[in-house]
Amino acid sequence: MSEIITAAMIVIGDEILSGRTKDKNIGHLADVMTAIGIDLKEVRIVSDDEDDIVAAVNALRARYTYVFTTGGIGPTHDDITADSIAKAFGVPCEYDEKAYRLLEAHYAQRGLEFTEARKRMARMPVGAEHIDNPISIAPGFRIGNVHVMAGVPSIFQAMLDNVVPTLKTGAKMLSAMIHCPFGEGVIGGPLAEIQKAHPDTIIGSYPKFLDGSFWTELVVRARTQEALDAAAGDVQAMVNALKAKQP
Amino acid sequence: MSEIITAAMIVIGDEILSGRTKDKNIGHLADVMTAIGIDLKEVRIVSDDEDDIVAAVNALRARYTYVFTTGGIGPTHDDITADSIAKAFGVPCEYDEKAYRLLEAHYAQRGLEFTEARKRMARMPVGAEHIDNPISIAPGFRIGNVHVMAGVPSIFQAMLDNVVPTLKTGAKMLSAMIHCPFGEGVIGGPLAEIQKAHPDTIIGSYPKFLDGSFWTELVVRARTQEALDAAAGDVQAMVNALKAKQP
Repeated sequence: MSEIITAAMIVIGDEILSGRTKDKNIGHLADVMTAIGIDLKEVRIVSDDEDDIVAAVNALRARYTYVFTTGGIGPTHDDITADSIAKAFGVPCEYDEKAYRLLEAHYAQRGLEFTEARKRMARMPVGAEHIDNPISIAPGFRIGNVHVMAGVPSIFQAMLDNVVPTLKTGAKMLSAMIHCPFGEGVIGGPLAEIQKAHPDTIIGSYPKFLDGSFWTELVVRARTQEALDAAAGDVQAMVNALKAKQP
Repeated sequence: MSEIITAAMIVIGDEILSGRTKDKNIGHLADVMTAIGIDLKEVRIVSDDEDDIVAAVNALRARYTYVFTTGGIGPTHDDITADSIAKAFGVPCEYDEKAYRLLEAHYAQRGLEFTEARKRMARMPVGAEHIDNPISIAPGFRIGNVHVMAGVPSIFQAMLDNVVPTLKTGAKMLSAMIHCPFGEGVIGGPLAEIQKAHPDTIIGSYPKFLDGSFWTELVVRARTQEALDAAAGDVQAMVNALKAKQP
C-alpha cells in the first residue's frame, strides 16, 4: 500500500479573523491537495501574533508531512511570518542575499526606491530555500516541511504551482459521486451500514437544501478502484431501492 | 476599560478539507463577531475524527470566552459532533427529550417516518441547552462556553442569530478605513512608526493587486473614538504627504 501523505495549512492574518478579507486560499489548497493525492487534515487561521504562529507551526509540522502557510510575508510591520517561522525552527531570521539582489534589481528596473520596508521582504529563516514568485518577485520560502507563501490569492496560487512538483504525492484518492434525491434522514441508517461494510473507503454525505427540500450528494472516496467500485455500487443500489419504493 | 471578549471557531467536516464544499461560515461568523465587539482569535478546520474534534474543543474552550462549532450535527454516521463534544466535556451523549419530541412532531406533521437516523439528531451532551433551528427544527446546543451549530449556511446563520443575544459583548471595536494609492513597499516604514506611536490601536495594511499595480487599504481599529481618531489622523496625514510628493 502506498504511503499516506498528509498536510496542514496555516492562514495568518487579523484581516481574515475580523471578516474584512474573505479567505480564498483554503478552498484552492484543498482542491489542489485532493487532486494530487495528499490528504489535507487540518487548517488553522491565526492572528498576526508571534506566539500563536509559532505554536501552530510547531504543532502541525510535527504531525503532518507538509505544512503550508499563507499571509504575513509583505513589507509592513504586521508582516511577522518570516520571524515567527524562524523562531519556530530556532534559527535566526536574516536578509537572504539572493532574495535581496532579486528585489534590488526588480525595484531598480522599475525606477522605484528599495525602501527599508521592501528590504524586509528579503528576510527569511537561515537555511530556507526560495519559492519563486513570478508576480511580484518577493519570494516565499521552504524550511523543513513548512512552505511559506503569500496571502494575495493570485500570488499564493502561482507560488503553490511552483511547490507542487517538489512534493511527494500519495496514492491519488479516487472518488465517485452519487446523486441522491433523498435527505439524510432517509438514508442515514442504510448508509452507515454500507460504510461499516466498506472500512477501506470514506463515505461522505453532503446535505443540500434548496427551495424547501433536502437532497444529498453522496461521495465515496478510496485509494483503489476496486474498493471504490464496490462501495459506490452498494450506495447506488441503496438509492435505486429507495426510488423504487416511491409512489 | 471594558472586558475583552474573545472567541474561536471550529469548522468540522472532511468535505471542507477535501475542497468539495467551500466554507461560507467563517466569513459570516467573523463579520458578526466584529460587529458586536467580540474578538475572533482563531479558527480551526478539522476532519470528522473524534480525537481531532475533542482536542480542538478542549484546547479552545479553555483559552477563549466562547467557542462556536459548525458541521457534523446531521443524521448520518459521519455526523459525530454531538458525541465528540460530550466526550470533550466528559459527559454522556443521550437522547434529549425535548429535542426528540420536537422532531417527532415535525416529521409526523409532514407525514414522514421518524427514522433511527433522524432520531440521532435529538442526541446531545447531558446538560446542554438548545439552540433553536427555525429552518429544519433539529436543534443545535450550547454546553459550557461551546455553541454547536449546523454546517448548512442558512441554518448556521439562523442559529447564530438566536445565539447572539445571549452573548456578553465587549466594547465594540471601532474602525476607520483609509484608501492608500501606494503599495506596501512605499508605506511600510512610516506606517510602522505610526503603529508604534499608537499602541492602543491595531493598524492593518491590506494589499490589493489589480491590473498590474498595487494599492493598499489601511484599517485602523481601536476601542475608543479618541484613540481611533488620533491614529487615523496620522495615517491620513502620511498618505496626504506621499501624494504631495507625486509628480
